[in-house]
Amino acid sequence: LLEKCFSLDLPDQPETLEQLLVDCRDTLKYGVSTGHPRFFNQLSSGLDVIGIAGEWLTSTANTNMFTYEVSPVFILMEEFLLRKMQSIVGWSDDEGDGFFCPGGTISNLYSILVARYHFYPEVKTRGMGLLPQLALFTSEHSHYSVKKSAAVLGMGSDNVVMVKCDERGKMIPAELEACIVTAEEKGLVPFYVNATAGTTVYGAFDPLNAIADICHKHTLWMHVDRGGGGLLMSDRHRMKLQGIERAWSVTWNPHKMMGVPLQCSVILVKKRGLLQECNELGAEYLFQTDKPYDVSYDTGDKSIQCGRHVDVFKLWLMWKAKGSEGFGSQVNKCLENAEYLYDQLQRKTDFELVFKSKPEHSNVCFWYIPPSLRGLMKRVAPRIKSRMMEKGSVLIGYQPLGAKVNFFRCVFSNPATQQEDIDFLLDEITRLGDDL
Amino acid sequence: LLEKCFSLDLPDQPETLEQLLVDCRDTLKYGVSTGHPRFFNQLSSGLDVIGIAGEWLTSTANTNMFTYEVSPVFILMEEFLLRKMQSIVGWSDDEGDGFFCPGGTISNLYSILVARYHFYPEVKTRGMGLLPQLALFTSEHSHYSVKKSAAVLGMGSDNVVMVKCDERGKMIPAELEACIVTAEEKGLVPFYVNATAGTTVYGAFDPLNAIADICHKHTLWMHVDRGGGGLLMSDRHRMKLQGIERAWSVTWNPHKMMGVPLQCSVILVKKRGLLQECNELGAEYLFQTDKPYDVSYDTGDKSIQCGRHVDVFKLWLMWKAKGSEGFGSQVNKCLENAEYLYDQLQRKTDFELVFKSKPEHSNVCFWYIPPSLRGLMKRVAPRIKSRMMEKGSVLIGYQPLGAKVNFFRCVFSNPATQQEDIDFLLDEITRLGDDL
Repeated sequence: LLEKCFSLDLPDQPETLEQLLVDCRDTLKYGVSTGHPRFFNQLSSGLDVIGIAGEWLTSTANTNMFTYEVSPVFILMEEFLLRKMQSIVGWSDDEGDGFFCPGGTISNLYSILVARYHFYPEVKTRGMGLLPQLALFTSEHSHYSVKKSAAVLGMGSDNVVMVKCDERGKMIPAELEACIVTAEEKGLVPFYVNATAGTTVYGAFDPLNAIADICHKHTLWMHVDRGGGGLLMSDRHRMKLQGIERAWSVTWNPHKMMGVPLQCSVILVKKRGLLQECNELGAEYLFQTDKPYDVSYDTGDKSIQCGRHVDVFKLWLMWKAKGSEGFGSQVNKCLENAEYLYDQLQRKTDFELVFKSKPEHSNVCFWYIPPSLRGLMKRVAPRIKSRMMEKGSVLIGYQPLGAKVNFFRCVFSNPATQQEDIDFLLDEITRLGDDL
Repeated sequence: LLEKCFSLDLPDQPETLEQLLVDCRDTLKYGVSTGHPRFFNQLSSGLDVIGIAGEWLTSTANTNMFTYEVSPVFILMEEFLLRKMQSIVGWSDDEGDGFFCPGGTISNLYSILVARYHFYPEVKTRGMGLLPQLALFTSEHSHYSVKKSAAVLGMGSDNVVMVKCDERGKMIPAELEACIVTAEEKGLVPFYVNATAGTTVYGAFDPLNAIADICHKHTLWMHVDRGGGGLLMSDRHRMKLQGIERAWSVTWNPHKMMGVPLQCSVILVKKRGLLQECNELGAEYLFQTDKPYDVSYDTGDKSIQCGRHVDVFKLWLMWKAKGSEGFGSQVNKCLENAEYLYDQLQRKTDFELVFKSKPEHSNVCFWYIPPSLRGLMKRVAPRIKSRMMEKGSVLIGYQPLGAKVNFFRCVFSNPATQQEDIDFLLDEITRLGDDL
């Protein structure tokens, strides 16, 4: 259908500027307004003008993070911002390393990569053949990137043990302990635990201190995925991440609740120098060591990527524009929206919450139950969403999880979202769904 | 020094708009003008206004390639452009798959990942433990990403065999054949050969047809790195890539000689469906299968990344603006510049070419020999470059390679570069170097 409104065709001869402008207009017109206050589909939403200005300047500068000589300002900025983020995580001044990655999955992949290298440095040159069969642990509610990374890195997705969660979606520490013992009995060697601070669907926080105790006892690498989605910036909510300072690595995605334009994700590693050792190949034809400056500023040999997009500037500029407190209140606002939605849902008879307790994060999960369809709930969310997509009035995600059939998951990350948008969401669901 | 001109500090309270504008100005001021016609340091250069407009629209749209529901236009565009690029590579209509990646190293990593999965699908779930010790082959002049990917994927960088090149930097097919036999004798299992179409330093083209014959004989995966840097777009130069259609996968980086703003890299895989099978985990909580559209348009489970930056639009818009022929003549212009520089260098007594034959790509490699320093050549290029960086008049890369001491490598990708800029480069090197 879309293909009919829009010609994707690429000509041999140049097209006119007028045609290009029509194409640009159509691209935006037929696209999805992710910046609209009623876009609840993903956490990557909002349209921060300063962030966009930052991205525009970045693309105009059109440079690359691999060497200081082509990116002196951005390299120093990255270094500075990483220190700032490491201190917010709670690491001491002589701890912490990292960089910006193309998305949270790659950040998580780095955490497993350096963990493996930390315990088995010979893997870099000699491969997995000499290693024992490694086991990784993550909760059943965690992001699939742990499994995906294990497959990519040659560890096998089957060797990722999915630890049970409680009703609220938090990893159960006693289950983790039991899984570690079982894995060892099977001849596997546990080495890595991923804890999630803000799961994708429920927005649940794993108990970081309890997990850190277990990792300490068994000498396992502890990674924290999603660094709480910006909750570390909020004085009111950062206590939900107590224990994060004990992690050996942290993924933090400012392109989610902090509203930074895509892509903006950071991997932080506590032990300094490990990323460099793990990834460097010393290709002197690209990273010369006889340059007229301190070549430790060249980050290209520390990452898997050679060229690396500049993702730091937009975050730095937004931070200047909002101040740390501005990010804090932006996060608070998102969580207030979640509480408001939770309160409204409790009052309505045709909606049902997926779990009863108050939201800890910006996620609110619920079903809409149209009069005629009790018992056939599975199809409700997809059909309402289909109508939403046709009408284009609002967008929200849904998914099944374990035994729970398709439910809506609302997340808040757009500071422009008002309570009236939340009211609209519920009314619109009812409008679109009451004849189902 | 830079830290003194520029405050990186991030405040708790918002800063004024005036201060933000000063910061933006300073960021550009102290940055490196990669778009300047005298920036010869890397292939990622130029400042294509249409490309930048494309990137600006992309950041304004602020969406994500993982699902059709949030990126309908960009997903169709990606599909369309991939088909176009696959047909330019020379694959038939029922062949070809791929996507845009965050840089050429990740594209190359994908090629090894799918090659391993193609021969050993059980690796995905069970890991490398059950596999034989695999061996990979690439030329000694190829990009280090093959080694880096082997380390990341758990194959070990030592198991990447570096095949000898001729004087011109091209892989020697008889050496490849010999390396394969030697590896087998050592008990390794060869499975993957990377051929380079345009090496980083010399701009050399490996003999693709001869390599394809060897891969066919031994049933090895054949990958072509760098798809010729845009030479496929030129009727005059595409014969240098004869045999590329026989590759099982190709990396093509339009952010290099085609001048697309960073990042813009594509992995193309001949066998359709392999990327999906290799990477999919079927996380239904993210990629629902009961959506109101054909979910094969959702690319999120086909890639390692979950969220994926929109890199297609700027390329599509530039293609519209230039037409295929426009890209072709842009590439021709870069190669004409290289020939012009080569001719000038032959005429000058204080410069020496690193290899005597005419450039095949846009790379020209040379030494500057100041009167007093014959015999101490190693230090010349770094010292001249250091002076260039201080003065800011021009920027060019240098490196050693094998037994050859530090030499300059000039590459052309910026359509704005004129012959007078090339003359300036040589004069400036002489000015900065004649007292060394």
